Amino acid sequence: MVPYNLLKTKAAYLETGVWAQKAIKEAKLFGPVEVVASSSDKNFTYVPKNFTIPADADYFHITTNNTIYGSELRKDLDSPIPLVADMSSDILSRPVDVSKYAMIYGGAQKNLGPAGVTFVILREDILGKVDRPIPTMLNYKTHIKEGSLFNTPPCFAIYTCLETLRWIKNLGGVTKIEEMNQKKAKLLYDTIDNSKIFTGTVEKDSRSLMNICFVMKEQYKDKEDGFMEFAKSKGMIGIKGHRSVGGFRASTYNALPIESVQALVDAMNEFEKANV
Amino acid sequence: MVPYNLLKTKAAYLETGVWAQKAIKEAKLFGPVEVVASSSDKNFTYVPKNFTIPADADYFHITTNNTIYGSELRKDLDSPIPLVADMSSDILSRPVDVSKYAMIYGGAQKNLGPAGVTFVILREDILGKVDRPIPTMLNYKTHIKEGSLFNTPPCFAIYTCLETLRWIKNLGGVTKIEEMNQKKAKLLYDTIDNSKIFTGTVEKDSRSLMNICFVMKEQYKDKEDGFMEFAKSKGMIGIKGHRSVGGFRASTYNALPIESVQALVDAMNEFEKANV
Repeated sequence: MVPYNLLKTKAAYLETGVWAQKAIKEAKLFGPVEVVASSSDKNFTYVPKNFTIPADADYFHITTNNTIYGSELRKDLDSPIPLVADMSSDILSRPVDVSKYAMIYGGAQKNLGPAGVTFVILREDILGKVDRPIPTMLNYKTHIKEGSLFNTPPCFAIYTCLETLRWIKNLGGVTKIEEMNQKKAKLLYDTIDNSKIFTGTVEKDSRSLMNICFVMKEQYKDKEDGFMEFAKSKGMIGIKGHRSVGGFRASTYNALPIESVQALVDAMNEFEKANV
Repeated sequence: MVPYNLLKTKAAYLETGVWAQKAIKEAKLFGPVEVVASSSDKNFTYVPKNFTIPADADYFHITTNNTIYGSELRKDLDSPIPLVADMSSDILSRPVDVSKYAMIYGGAQKNLGPAGVTFVILREDILGKVDRPIPTMLNYKTHIKEGSLFNTPPCFAIYTCLETLRWIKNLGGVTKIEEMNQKKAKLLYDTIDNSKIFTGTVEKDSRSLMNICFVMKEQYKDKEDGFMEFAKSKGMIGIKGHRSVGGFRASTYNALPIESVQALVDAMNEFEKANV
């Protein structure tokens, strides 16, 4: 929907992972795409920093958190052109300076609510500039005009989002949530950094607070399956890393309590003691 | 998505109400549309019968039930070209000869489950004939290839559909459901037809079993608000007809028990006795 509504002459994209790549692929159906910077050279283990956003593109698209590779852009960029961010997997994980974005969008299913509902925050002045006809359902203007009621709304999913927002508010808002997320991430990253057998896969200043990826050091690679089994015996499932990274991935979304991270850290320490 | 994936040279549509009109409007973005027949001349109070489906169109699109006008096409047509049916509001209300359709699609939120999930039944051979590039998410082939797991599935909505299907199966299947729907509709339509003050808006052979529309006869028009209030006092809300039809509309989807229809019929009879 982003290129359908916004791409007139050229779009600029930051290539930081699989979701960014998918976004680029779709944008190309609608016009030229300039990939401003990419971390594909190092299997997306970092978020590019030194790049110039082209002033002649219609918009600059970023994917703020990369779920598969475990990297995250945790800074609100200054952009000379409309900044469009897919925040599917880190919305509400930290305070965001919304005024720096022309558009923020995403799926609800990480920090906001259940799968089946999406969110779009946009500045209306970016719309109406393309000439192509846009199917009514895919036109952001439709949903603005109809107050998000053009389609029959998925009430259950929306209500669950409301309850999640209330929960965040009661906790102390996103400032408090960010503190909690930092605490959880620090606990796990410190364990990884102090470990003799585990090592992180992402450059330190690009590390995600939502998806923490780590592997066994080269000389302990053959113990990865063993740790997976060990963690499983402690009731921890789903920590297998994506096949394009390997190793392990711990997703530490807002809803995950620090006790769960502590349990993983304990298991890692216990396994290390027994195996080194 | 239908014209995006299927419209190559020309599409044929049957214009039977608001949803059909919306479908026609979207199809026109992708190519020429031939409206084979329309009941717009009589405010959609009937479903056209005598028409010829053009053999040179890519597909023939019908909307089987018209929620606003209360008409329904309850027959599986023979079509020389792929027959595509929007069955959003009457799927599972009667046995359907699926083999006569190239595609059946709809939203779940009437007879199948909660809002937030859609269904598509299609014959794969109708795909891959258009030349235009199709965004991955809007390409039916994507969802076939990925087993409907290209996107994160809305589990709650899908699970509720499963439970609804189990409920229908336990009742005795769609054959039994159809019987129940016919019984409910007959009860209400008979009351309308035998009434001195109420009258149906749709031609008898086009009447919907899902949405039953009726108004007050001309000489009793001023009593419509009164009946609305009377029904409300009996706990019946939401029976106001759409503004383009006026009067009343009782939706008798699968989930509505006959007791509810009986309550409405009792209220109609009581109101008539007191006002004629």
